[in-house]
Amino acid sequence: MKPVFAITIGDPCGVGPEIVLKSLANHQDLHRECQMIIFGSKSILEIAAREIDLKVNIQSIEEKDIPNNLPEGIVCLDLNPVPFKHEFGVVTAEGGQHSFSYLSKAIDFSMQKKLNGIVTAPINKKSLRAGAVPYLDHTEMLTKLTNSNRTMTLFVTHKMRVFFYSRHIPFKDISAALDIQKLVDTLADCAGYMNQIGVSNPKLALAALNPHAGEEGLFGTEEMDILEPAVQQARKRGLTVEGPIPGDSVFHLAGEGHFDAVLSLYHDQGHIATKTYDFYHTVALTMGLPFLRTSVDHGTAFDIAGKNIADETSLVEAIKAAVRYYW
Amino acid sequence: MKPVFAITIGDPCGVGPEIVLKSLANHQDLHRECQMIIFGSKSILEIAAREIDLKVNIQSIEEKDIPNNLPEGIVCLDLNPVPFKHEFGVVTAEGGQHSFSYLSKAIDFSMQKKLNGIVTAPINKKSLRAGAVPYLDHTEMLTKLTNSNRTMTLFVTHKMRVFFYSRHIPFKDISAALDIQKLVDTLADCAGYMNQIGVSNPKLALAALNPHAGEEGLFGTEEMDILEPAVQQARKRGLTVEGPIPGDSVFHLAGEGHFDAVLSLYHDQGHIATKTYDFYHTVALTMGLPFLRTSVDHGTAFDIAGKNIADETSLVEAIKAAVRYYW
Repeated sequence: MKPVFAITIGDPCGVGPEIVLKSLANHQDLHRECQMIIFGSKSILEIAAREIDLKVNIQSIEEKDIPNNLPEGIVCLDLNPVPFKHEFGVVTAEGGQHSFSYLSKAIDFSMQKKLNGIVTAPINKKSLRAGAVPYLDHTEMLTKLTNSNRTMTLFVTHKMRVFFYSRHIPFKDISAALDIQKLVDTLADCAGYMNQIGVSNPKLALAALNPHAGEEGLFGTEEMDILEPAVQQARKRGLTVEGPIPGDSVFHLAGEGHFDAVLSLYHDQGHIATKTYDFYHTVALTMGLPFLRTSVDHGTAFDIAGKNIADETSLVEAIKAAVRYYW
Repeated sequence: MKPVFAITIGDPCGVGPEIVLKSLANHQDLHRECQMIIFGSKSILEIAAREIDLKVNIQSIEEKDIPNNLPEGIVCLDLNPVPFKHEFGVVTAEGGQHSFSYLSKAIDFSMQKKLNGIVTAPINKKSLRAGAVPYLDHTEMLTKLTNSNRTMTLFVTHKMRVFFYSRHIPFKDISAALDIQKLVDTLADCAGYMNQIGVSNPKLALAALNPHAGEEGLFGTEEMDILEPAVQQARKRGLTVEGPIPGDSVFHLAGEGHFDAVLSLYHDQGHIATKTYDFYHTVALTMGLPFLRTSVDHGTAFDIAGKNIADETSLVEAIKAAVRYYW
């Protein structure tokens, strides 16, 4: 049986509805690989279809149809939590509330094991705040609503897979956040997550912090003091880890398939690598949940929403990643 | 008349001799674009040719033949500063001394305007030290031996051009090194260097430091306190500058041709972007000298020297960049 995924349209005022429609209407190969159910609003999808001049037949389904009574074609679980005068490109309370309700419904179904996972289009933090939604972002919603202890983001682009040791902290706090024990634990988590998506005994690489990995202490000592001991200890735990490897070669090597995954030390290190390598084919996976969640790597792009400019490649790749990595 | 470039073979014990030979023997198109003179040792080139099983005829020339009496084919100014029992893959005093003498001779000829520029294969810092050469690296030799005030590295890969605000400093000192006036001066330098290589009124971008460019101070304040004021002041000086733009989009945009050059704030930021984007096609230009110098973006790779493994693409690209950008 094909896996069944929820595709949430994200903020109705962003590029989400448009890229969801383009992905499902223009990429027939996806329908052969999996069953996709749009979690969103049929009326907003129809507005988006009109704006981008896409002829498409969207079929409503009911909750009881999931997962065993789904028709072929483009299928939507039509959710209309609050009335809404919809307009593209603006921050609205309703936009925030709608995007939250689409995701929370998809989480319900995933927790009941009626779905194999969730693929998310982008939501907007300002709209969430305007709508008094008590969560910062997708990851916080997913973590809390599934009672998960912690989650970890994995970026995938072609052969390159990148985990993050730290993410949304100020740049000047990155060095002080490095800790041998936490690095070892994180490397162990990475190995566990790789097992979960089917890569057993993964070959991991730890990125360095300083230029040339510090060049024996000449340009920084975190490698000698923290990163090298962490790699040694991780190996004692039975993990296969190389590093610390200079940032300007470790991602290149991962792209050539030398490692199953790289642990980057900070947000921009891993983000610059993956998104510069191939912006459109970079996909985010959220690991540590009871089910797989994949996501586009971009935001709501209010400036181009509803203008038929948005490129659906990243969402198509997120759906393909769900097919490849679900369990 | 075709431009004339010195190609220095770098450390004789590294991959330099091999990649120089492969570039000149296997890429005939280069000979149509420019006249190349190998500054190195004929006997070491012949050893390298034998190791990699390359049939090649290397012609010796004399100093007086430069630039107007050069034969076709593969041409070498044969420099043998000290006797040398050559072996691949090892740090030697002679290797350091030889590589220095090749470059210093090429600088002499460039200063006399007998060459249009220098393309360098890699040298080894440890060999330089072993040979008591009183310079740290290529850039220091070039800056001091040409009496240049300062120099600046420009990385080029496809449409992406990246300057560096800071380079060989510890990661934890990067934030404190940011200074409004110095950023404005550096942006002005970038514009001047772009003019020098034929891009007038360049459109520059300044990379941000923090994740999401700090997201309005949520993840760091350097953007608000330092980078935004620097961009404003640079514009008042008449420069075209955008930014600060988050690191994970600015390089992607530059790769798509949206900017003529990006000023990155630290070594790994620009290095990760260019080398992950296309490792083999990344070339370094040294700006601020009386002549153009281009270089491979990799080191001596002692571990694979003389084994016919080294890829010459980066050197070929460095030669093409010299042809494209010399003045």
